[in-house]
Amino acid sequence: MQRTLAAEVPRHIGEEVRLLGWLHHVRALGSISFVILRDRTGLAQGVVLDPSKLDVSQLKRESVVEVIGTVKAEPQAKKGAEIVVRSVTPLIEPVAELPFEVNRSRKKLNLKIDAVLDHRAFSLRNPEFAAPFRVQAEVVRTFSDHLRSRGFLEVHTSKIVAAGTEGGTALFPIKYFEQTAYLAQSPQFYKQMLVGAGFERVFEVGFVYRAEDHATSRHINEYLSLDYEMGFIESYTDVMDTERGFLAALVENLAKNCPDEFELLGAQLPRLGTVPEIPLKEAVAILSRDYGRDVTGMVDLDPEGERQICDYALKNHGSEFVFISRYPRSARPFYTMPDPEDDESTLGFDLLFRGLEVTTGSQRIHDYQMLCDSIRRIGGNPDSFNFYLEIFKYGMPPHGGLAIGAERLTQQLLGLGNVREASFFPRDRFRITP
Amino acid sequence: MQRTLAAEVPRHIGEEVRLLGWLHHVRALGSISFVILRDRTGLAQGVVLDPSKLDVSQLKRESVVEVIGTVKAEPQAKKGAEIVVRSVTPLIEPVAELPFEVNRSRKKLNLKIDAVLDHRAFSLRNPEFAAPFRVQAEVVRTFSDHLRSRGFLEVHTSKIVAAGTEGGTALFPIKYFEQTAYLAQSPQFYKQMLVGAGFERVFEVGFVYRAEDHATSRHINEYLSLDYEMGFIESYTDVMDTERGFLAALVENLAKNCPDEFELLGAQLPRLGTVPEIPLKEAVAILSRDYGRDVTGMVDLDPEGERQICDYALKNHGSEFVFISRYPRSARPFYTMPDPEDDESTLGFDLLFRGLEVTTGSQRIHDYQMLCDSIRRIGGNPDSFNFYLEIFKYGMPPHGGLAIGAERLTQQLLGLGNVREASFFPRDRFRITP
Repeated sequence: MQRTLAAEVPRHIGEEVRLLGWLHHVRALGSISFVILRDRTGLAQGVVLDPSKLDVSQLKRESVVEVIGTVKAEPQAKKGAEIVVRSVTPLIEPVAELPFEVNRSRKKLNLKIDAVLDHRAFSLRNPEFAAPFRVQAEVVRTFSDHLRSRGFLEVHTSKIVAAGTEGGTALFPIKYFEQTAYLAQSPQFYKQMLVGAGFERVFEVGFVYRAEDHATSRHINEYLSLDYEMGFIESYTDVMDTERGFLAALVENLAKNCPDEFELLGAQLPRLGTVPEIPLKEAVAILSRDYGRDVTGMVDLDPEGERQICDYALKNHGSEFVFISRYPRSARPFYTMPDPEDDESTLGFDLLFRGLEVTTGSQRIHDYQMLCDSIRRIGGNPDSFNFYLEIFKYGMPPHGGLAIGAERLTQQLLGLGNVREASFFPRDRFRITP
Repeated sequence: MQRTLAAEVPRHIGEEVRLLGWLHHVRALGSISFVILRDRTGLAQGVVLDPSKLDVSQLKRESVVEVIGTVKAEPQAKKGAEIVVRSVTPLIEPVAELPFEVNRSRKKLNLKIDAVLDHRAFSLRNPEFAAPFRVQAEVVRTFSDHLRSRGFLEVHTSKIVAAGTEGGTALFPIKYFEQTAYLAQSPQFYKQMLVGAGFERVFEVGFVYRAEDHATSRHINEYLSLDYEMGFIESYTDVMDTERGFLAALVENLAKNCPDEFELLGAQLPRLGTVPEIPLKEAVAILSRDYGRDVTGMVDLDPEGERQICDYALKNHGSEFVFISRYPRSARPFYTMPDPEDDESTLGFDLLFRGLEVTTGSQRIHDYQMLCDSIRRIGGNPDSFNFYLEIFKYGMPPHGGLAIGAERLTQQLLGLGNVREASFFPRDRFRITP
């Protein structure tokens, strides 16, 4: 007899079905018992009408079970149907005590993040801990599909590199045979090179690595970066417009495909509106004018400022997202295009969402000499970037791109307290297992 | 005036168009000149009818150019249309001599693989070097879409691990703050754990790392692994059937979306037929019987044997693919399910394609005690696998999965001489740049 999935049960009223999954919950009420089975599609409720003939009270929770019974309409049950159970057969039983409950809410469980991560696979059996990953998969799918539909090629570029891209010393060294290599901080150089290689438009979904000593709820040292880079742009605003298109597709797909996950976590779909662009200097002026902030010497938004400017964007533009643009040159990597109207400024931008930065992007320098000069300006030697610079010698079109942190975007979408909840196996200052 | 892409030109007969791209080729014939522009969609031919008024002979090849002109039907031109050119404006010109030609065939160029890779971005401007990546993107898209349509969740698991999965010492060490970690050899443990976490069916597209000292045309040290793992299987053949479904979708999509790439490289779409399964012992017997091989002591197929059994499968089953199954236990990792009919054998399999292994998979052990015993059998200590084993204590369903090497599959699809041609920035024994 073929397997029926939990989500399919309401479509089989009057039929006999066979379900496979985990025993999520058992309730024995004396004259009647309930068994809740959980599979990858959700929960299915089974009712045992004669517990004296079928005793379910001794079944071990989280056993792998087979439930056979007949589906009947039941307005009280969550999806309007339940299974009148004929048999429950444990196929594989737990051989140790469960570390904690999976059928209770996160709030009631009140676990520390380390307890959740120490038992990572088990914790994901709790639907609330699993939900962020269904949302994240939808983020990744939407990103990929949207960009493909706009002529972007999916690429995968090496994560073992000879030097860093983002400057600084935040690199993890690898012993690579007789050489020392490093984990890539971003696919930045490679995606630009592939624009110049003639693909024009490329995107990549892949891990990047930052050996930064942060220990906050919004940093992990390995994160999934959603990158794209596009050639033949007329302005950095083309790069932002492409992200606006992605965000619109994302809100639509999440509404369609992830309503249960948002409901389960008490999260709201983002209000998108028309995502405004506010140049940094204007943003600072707004903080001073509307939020009474002392902005003396403020060259970037602090965390409080990020929250305030998001508040401003929501009130004035009806969007929970806001682009902050034209960051100062000193705060941006050497490959960022300077602002033609102000050499100390750039055509770089961030996207803030619900008070947190989730994207960094810019138009890039495409002129070979200008790029060499920009490297020298920060005290670098163009010779050490030869592998990257070469393609700029042979006709590089104007281009720009950006990177989105997938875990952070998921965190902000769902209001998760810690970005680690959006990473299956997060790596931080101290954690390399499981 | 909006940009028209090269591939769109035939749809604009009689209209004025503006193209942006690279100057692929110039031919000045005296009374008439031709300019070929290349963009991400291919080539477009422009004709200059009065070279005395518009001299294109001095334009530098590979310049980024703007071509403006009127489209006319031209049966002689490749796509039935060409552009009568009014102006060609170089926007960005090369500032150095080109390393080699991009408008000549690979065969004529006759470059060593290292010359291709030393100038990687530039070499990809040659349509023949670029083609494998359009095919590979189609492989990845088809893999992802096919598995999603069958209820698999896309996952991304850490590539920084505390210990190896595949045994042996082929690990790249990472200095991870004060700890030593390693680059993941495969997502094997994680994907199994996520089956047990309740997702049941997961897939991952991600790099894996093998510090093996090979220097062959079919090995690289960082490769893109297409992994899936599925729970509640009845047999290892369920895992193979899912791959059969993927392969059928792949052949269909390649025929539809990549005919130009196959034509350009002179490659044939694979004949799929019904992919047969041949147990290893039977395959060895076939080598002896049909191919006159001395199989004394043969416990695995050698490269010649792989080619011969592929020849056999094509002749007898009409398929260029063949599953070889039931490998000996000694040749398979500890987590492989032993063959219930022969304890020295396993429910593990490989997929061979045109003489080369492109997939390894198996049913896995799901019983906690059996898995601990299997670790001890190879001299291991289950305690050191605690993070992996834990979920097996709490009800792990029967499951299995496999991994496909994306670059190798691309290599075999297109008949590439070297797997490095299917990797943007390959990493081998000596190469970590570009």
